[in-house]
Amino acid sequence: MAKLYFRYGAMNSGKSTLLLQTAHNYEERGMKVILIKPSKDIKADVSIESRLGVNRKVDYLVDDDTSILDIVSNINNVSCILVDEAQFLNPNQVDELLRVTTDYDIPVICYGLRTDFKTNGFPGSIRLLEIAHSIEEMKTICRCGSKATFNARFVNGNLATEGEQVAIDGFDSVTYESMCPKCYFKLRGKVKVLTK
Amino acid sequence: MAKLYFRYGAMNSGKSTLLLQTAHNYEERGMKVILIKPSKDIKADVSIESRLGVNRKVDYLVDDDTSILDIVSNINNVSCILVDEAQFLNPNQVDELLRVTTDYDIPVICYGLRTDFKTNGFPGSIRLLEIAHSIEEMKTICRCGSKATFNARFVNGNLATEGEQVAIDGFDSVTYESMCPKCYFKLRGKVKVLTK
Amino acid sequence: MAKLYFRYGAMNSGKSTLLLQTAHNYEERGMKVILIKPSKDIKADVSIESRLGVNRKVDYLVDDDTSILDIVSNINNVSCILVDEAQFLNPNQVDELLRVTTDYDIPVICYGLRTDFKTNGFPGSIRLLEIAHSIEEMKTICRCGSKATFNARFVNGNLATEGEQVAIDGFDSVTYESMCPKCYFKLRGKVKVLTK
Amino acid sequence: MAKLYFRYGAMNSGKSTLLLQTAHNYEERGMKVILIKPSKDIKADVSIESRLGVNRKVDYLVDDDTSILDIVSNINNVSCILVDEAQFLNPNQVDELLRVTTDYDIPVICYGLRTDFKTNGFPGSIRLLEIAHSIEEMKTICRCGSKATFNARFVNGNLATEGEQVAIDGFDSVTYESMCPKCYFKLRGKVKVLTK
Repeated sequence: MAKLYFRYGAMNSGKSTLLLQTAHNYEERGMKVILIKPSKDIKADVSIESRLGVNRKVDYLVDDDTSILDIVSNINNVSCILVDEAQFLNPNQVDELLRVTTDYDIPVICYGLRTDFKTNGFPGSIRLLEIAHSIEEMKTICRCGSKATFNARFVNGNLATEGEQVAIDGFDSVTYESMCPKCYFKLRGKVKVLTK
Repeated sequence: MAKLYFRYGAMNSGKSTLLLQTAHNYEERGMKVILIKPSKDIKADVSIESRLGVNRKVDYLVDDDTSILDIVSNINNVSCILVDEAQFLNPNQVDELLRVTTDYDIPVICYGLRTDFKTNGFPGSIRLLEIAHSIEEMKTICRCGSKATFNARFVNGNLATEGEQVAIDGFDSVTYESMCPKCYFKLRGKVKVLTK
Repeated sequence: MAKLYFRYGAMNSGKSTLLLQTAHNYEERGMKVILIKPSKDIKADVSIESRLGVNRKVDYLVDDDTSILDIVSNINNVSCILVDEAQFLNPNQVDELLRVTTDYDIPVICYGLRTDFKTNGFPGSIRLLEIAHSIEEMKTICRCGSKATFNARFVNGNLATEGEQVAIDGFDSVTYESMCPKCYFKLRGKVKVLTK
Repeated sequence: MAKLYFRYGAMNSGKSTLLLQTAHNYEERGMKVILIKPSKDIKADVSIESRLGVNRKVDYLVDDDTSILDIVSNINNVSCILVDEAQFLNPNQVDELLRVTTDYDIPVICYGLRTDFKTNGFPGSIRLLEIAHSIEEMKTICRCGSKATFNARFVNGNLATEGEQVAIDGFDSVTYESMCPKCYFKLRGKVKVLTK
């Protein structure tokens, strides 16, 4: 039975690299995969780029009103659907991906962020966390060596706590750092070290 | 470094049993645990009951306006905090539990449902899925033998698709069945078997 | 496709409790399970006992020369096979369990220890670690609060580093304690704290 | 507390790619990693090659009599040790890696195969499966679309069931294919489809 997977991780956890590796694994067996990416992610237009230097053209760029079931009903012999930046899907599109697994028996693997710089989920990631058959974490590290789960945003080097949910890394003086909750709270000046 | 865990599962996946087992594991070492439960779960009053026949009194029953940090600041030498039916916490209380791990260095293990009978998250489970250090699935099975992830509600034996988010199993002719998405959609008459 | 699972954990991680809970989950749906236990575990004769106080009769006690495929070929309509103390199976019996999944399409869930008091695997656990479709850890805690993975043996309260692989807890002045590697090495006087 | 990880997978599951990605994640934070590889793997001399086209020089090539603790005692400020083809370590070297985590507090991440073409563990992988703090699976697919866990060897295109444990892919007419147990047994002519 085909499943819907959500492989989530903080920024720089290697999500795009693993997506491209997974595509490679299918294709070297002669199996066809399709790569989908929401168009909201303006950074990479029509390609998926791994920070390791590998990149590849996206097969379908989906807008907010694109029906994924329409796409799937027009393709044949697909062994797996891979979605990059899946946090930018809308909830309805995630529901459609679940139907791809139950109605078409095609596995779907979504890669994406769990939360934004305010620690709130994106529309697509919340829906994936709710209904994916399987939720798998991709790890990366904090500056302290612990596992990072938060994505801190900096504007001109200063921690940002307000702003739009989407602001692309490297534009408008925006940068991000993956952090563990403890280091993040410390940076926000909120950790009162308490001994019990 | 202490962590916030969310061990989620469909109904009847053994969440309360594992909670009681975990409490036992700490206590046989002479370590103190506290058991917390949201009061919204009227089924079990002040005890946690496992369907295996084991049960135990809850230490703190929390209302919507209870501050969990207030509770923790008044207790000493606690090795672990265990939360039953954590889907009924409000998001702010989940944020407080994360602070218990970062500020007090006490691990917190929350057990709860991922989604309601409409496949939507509960306030507490969505926040836990967003910020828990670690998300762990507890499995149970569908009628078909596959893994169940949905909680279907029945009223007088008929599948319900509308109604309040909370309706206790066994009251008002309400029953639940853990199902896989495929069997659930089939029951709703929506699976159009399509071959590609 | 049915799978062979190995759910391993240190002593007192709740393996038998979860086995009994899993049996309960199948049976409340009217599905039949069978419980298997190697006879080498003389502690519990013909029942599986959870430290939470629940227990249940074993269906098949297997000796070293019992063929598990023979057992399975003589039973009907089994939805799942559950094995307690699976570390005591011999490697050939583990191979048979894998064939139960591939040839009979019946899922098999084995619960057992990973290693003995010398940190070496048991015959059954090594084979399960090698060929199980899925390896899942059941956690318990060390005296320091970290995850315990080792099973330290004590004879009359003293750490034992030599002796037979199997010695039952509570007999002949033997006791066990689940420990993390760091606390275990410290106890053996081997941790030289080194700073880099 | 630093941990010893074993990330195992069948051939072509992306182990080297993930290793290189993990190295990248540390280094872009200015943290130092060292890459270790057993010399038994003659395929790649002194570099780690990902099938995605990325590669990198190994820092330490270890022979059977190399002491890993000697290596570690001579390096400073290392944030993580990464081991490629870890199945070729000897058991004593794996024990040393565990001591690196407990005595030096440096995390160690080992990537390697679980089993050989006869489904038996390698010396290093068995020891890692026994004592690693954490065992994590890297998935790849079988020709049937299921998860592959076995590494079938072919000599001149014919399935091999006898031979040396180590024979490098691409040499002496040897090739490998990652397979699920069911397809593997079917290929060996052993699946008797039995209905219960």
